[in-house]
Amino acid sequence: MLFSPQIILSGYLFKWIFLCLIIGTMAGTASAGFLLSLNWVTDWREQHFWLILFLPVIGLLIGLLYHYYGQDVTKGNNQLLEEFHNPKNIIPFKMAPMIWLSTILTHLVGGSAGREGTAVQMGGSLADQLTHLFKFKPRDRKVILIAGIAAGFASVFGTPLAGTIFGLEVLLVGQLSYAAILPALLSAVIADQTCKAWNVGHTHYHIDLIPGLSAPAILWCVLAGIFFGITAMLFSKLMHKIAAFFKAKVAYAPLRPFYGGIILLMVIGFMHWLVPAYSTRYLGLGIPVILESFKQQQAFIDFATKVLFTAFTVGVGFKGGEVTPLFFIGATLGSALSLIIPLPIGLLAGMGFVSVFSGAANTPLACIVMGIELFGAESSVYIAIACIVAFLFSGNSGIYSAQPIGTEKHILLKRYYRK
Amino acid sequence: MLFSPQIILSGYLFKWIFLCLIIGTMAGTASAGFLLSLNWVTDWREQHFWLILFLPVIGLLIGLLYHYYGQDVTKGNNQLLEEFHNPKNIIPFKMAPMIWLSTILTHLVGGSAGREGTAVQMGGSLADQLTHLFKFKPRDRKVILIAGIAAGFASVFGTPLAGTIFGLEVLLVGQLSYAAILPALLSAVIADQTCKAWNVGHTHYHIDLIPGLSAPAILWCVLAGIFFGITAMLFSKLMHKIAAFFKAKVAYAPLRPFYGGIILLMVIGFMHWLVPAYSTRYLGLGIPVILESFKQQQAFIDFATKVLFTAFTVGVGFKGGEVTPLFFIGATLGSALSLIIPLPIGLLAGMGFVSVFSGAANTPLACIVMGIELFGAESSVYIAIACIVAFLFSGNSGIYSAQPIGTEKHILLKRYYRK
Repeated sequence: MLFSPQIILSGYLFKWIFLCLIIGTMAGTASAGFLLSLNWVTDWREQHFWLILFLPVIGLLIGLLYHYYGQDVTKGNNQLLEEFHNPKNIIPFKMAPMIWLSTILTHLVGGSAGREGTAVQMGGSLADQLTHLFKFKPRDRKVILIAGIAAGFASVFGTPLAGTIFGLEVLLVGQLSYAAILPALLSAVIADQTCKAWNVGHTHYHIDLIPGLSAPAILWCVLAGIFFGITAMLFSKLMHKIAAFFKAKVAYAPLRPFYGGIILLMVIGFMHWLVPAYSTRYLGLGIPVILESFKQQQAFIDFATKVLFTAFTVGVGFKGGEVTPLFFIGATLGSALSLIIPLPIGLLAGMGFVSVFSGAANTPLACIVMGIELFGAESSVYIAIACIVAFLFSGNSGIYSAQPIGTEKHILLKRYYRK
Repeated sequence: MLFSPQIILSGYLFKWIFLCLIIGTMAGTASAGFLLSLNWVTDWREQHFWLILFLPVIGLLIGLLYHYYGQDVTKGNNQLLEEFHNPKNIIPFKMAPMIWLSTILTHLVGGSAGREGTAVQMGGSLADQLTHLFKFKPRDRKVILIAGIAAGFASVFGTPLAGTIFGLEVLLVGQLSYAAILPALLSAVIADQTCKAWNVGHTHYHIDLIPGLSAPAILWCVLAGIFFGITAMLFSKLMHKIAAFFKAKVAYAPLRPFYGGIILLMVIGFMHWLVPAYSTRYLGLGIPVILESFKQQQAFIDFATKVLFTAFTVGVGFKGGEVTPLFFIGATLGSALSLIIPLPIGLLAGMGFVSVFSGAANTPLACIVMGIELFGAESSVYIAIACIVAFLFSGNSGIYSAQPIGTEKHILLKRYYRK
């Protein structure tokens, strides 16, 4: 019959509009509450520098929490990816409150961590609770997980299309399947709208000056992309190495963030003594520095220090994810590169903002779309070149160890396949 | 070694910057020349209505040309897709001049055809000539073909990112591989810049009013997407049916566009007698009507008539492709839908513009990005919902019969798999 496909799809459409309404509302509400509490603790920490004294204790607390109560949710984002590729157990509900609480605690004491991990884990675990209710088959559960990831990402950054594509793109390196494209989009849009309906806004970034394209500009863009990609690779490798080192040296898991917290505390204390003005620069999300990067040239030390701080903080076991620090790293690096690359500071900062993340998460299309959603369509070609070159030049490393390779970035990279 | 991936990729990068420079310059120059000549014949035909009298003769000429001189390039876009999936023979150079000439002739006599087919075939065949020179392996040839397609598409519409994604996305339904992402992007950007450097511009479209998102707006968007998807399906099916009918009834291929031309001539003559003002409305690309659709509500008859005209014109063997007529069909349908859907006319026209094409070519991401490049980022969520729903609701049909299914749009659609 001529309209058979449409009749079949109508049922599919109604089912997923209904489910995405639930997923989007839950994830958007969770993100709104999380962002509010995150703003609150960040403000508080910025006013009370002594809170960093609690880094070791809070580290221990988070460690104990996950060791005794969260063994089954401790893998975080990787757990969602593993569950997608090999569906076994429903993601426990407790993943959501635990990651919320531990992220807030991390930021309360100035840990250099992000927020996308939190939003994605809240979205994914809340969405998967519907599996209890509706007894989904594995095929539908995969869609549910993608929709939850997309909803969390979209609402925490206020970028619905980037969230949609992130949910589809993060599953495999170098390949994108459209099987869940509509549920991902609907839950991302609904989650973003829900978060905004709770009156929780997002930071606005602005690129002042976008020069016309030219052959040299394209080549400079490629060069910048290479820097961003290498930085993404170094970040991912360093973070995994630090995590592996602490795992090897400290057998009792809760002590890893405790010792990590002591080291962080000493470093921050030393910096406070050496250059007081910089003592809080690399703590927390670092939004003020990101905004500054678009306006004035940053020093190369900024991106390098933030790489060390974040790789260490997340590597030893503090929570929240890596993405906002990656924005910081990319924006400050881009801004600093204006010293040698003749492109406007704001444009380079914007390119770095999304490109380092593109290389680290292996999600170039989501990052291009995020650039368009955050900075407007005018800079899209610059953003696209930088994101795609960074994606290629980050090699076979990435922040998500459970992300399999779908299509090789380059056939010769196979021999450097991630372990 | 830590930087081995980057060292490997540097060679890859230099090679492809060099090749994309050639591909982009060739494709962009070809598109510029083609667009200029197309504007010229379109203007001429608009001033001289009697040119339509030559529809049968020109049809015969195009038919003879491809029958006696172009048997090996007659499959057009599908030939590029087939060559990608099963590399055998280098695309002959003559594909480029032949499609240029026959498209110009088609538009000279008022055939309702497009221009993306021409640009894509010129880009693909010009790019593949490098295979003679550099003796590429099949793996590199696949990349060359994608880069050529991306370059042609990008330069003919002035949308570099949409061209990039179209080149990657058109190969398979429901799946996207990143293996050629950098060459596609570079050649698309260079081709677009080359076309602009020749001082050949593109039409500007503008959506006046974009309301804030709301739950009803999202649902209306979904409904509009369903209309766009069904229209795309009906168009594809009708075009294939007309082609099959003429193939079955007229054994000698050159006579198909000849008889087709006679029928078109009679229909246009009848319309000229009935409603003189409408006699040229559905001829050629139809850019003026597309622009009108953004400003004032069109009648439902417009989109339906253009479907018939285009499916017939392309189905019997006139040349140029389907995409700009699909923009016409979508924009007028969207504009007409403002009668029942409470969204602004311009927004609905813009949604239709890219969504019917999304459903017909099975390229939702390229169409979303095209919408952003043409109309700006503000309407992106509306565009995305409409494009993705249209992609799903066009079922398993599409304008490119050589496009295999990578991932099913819906598991139950399998039984309606295209023959």
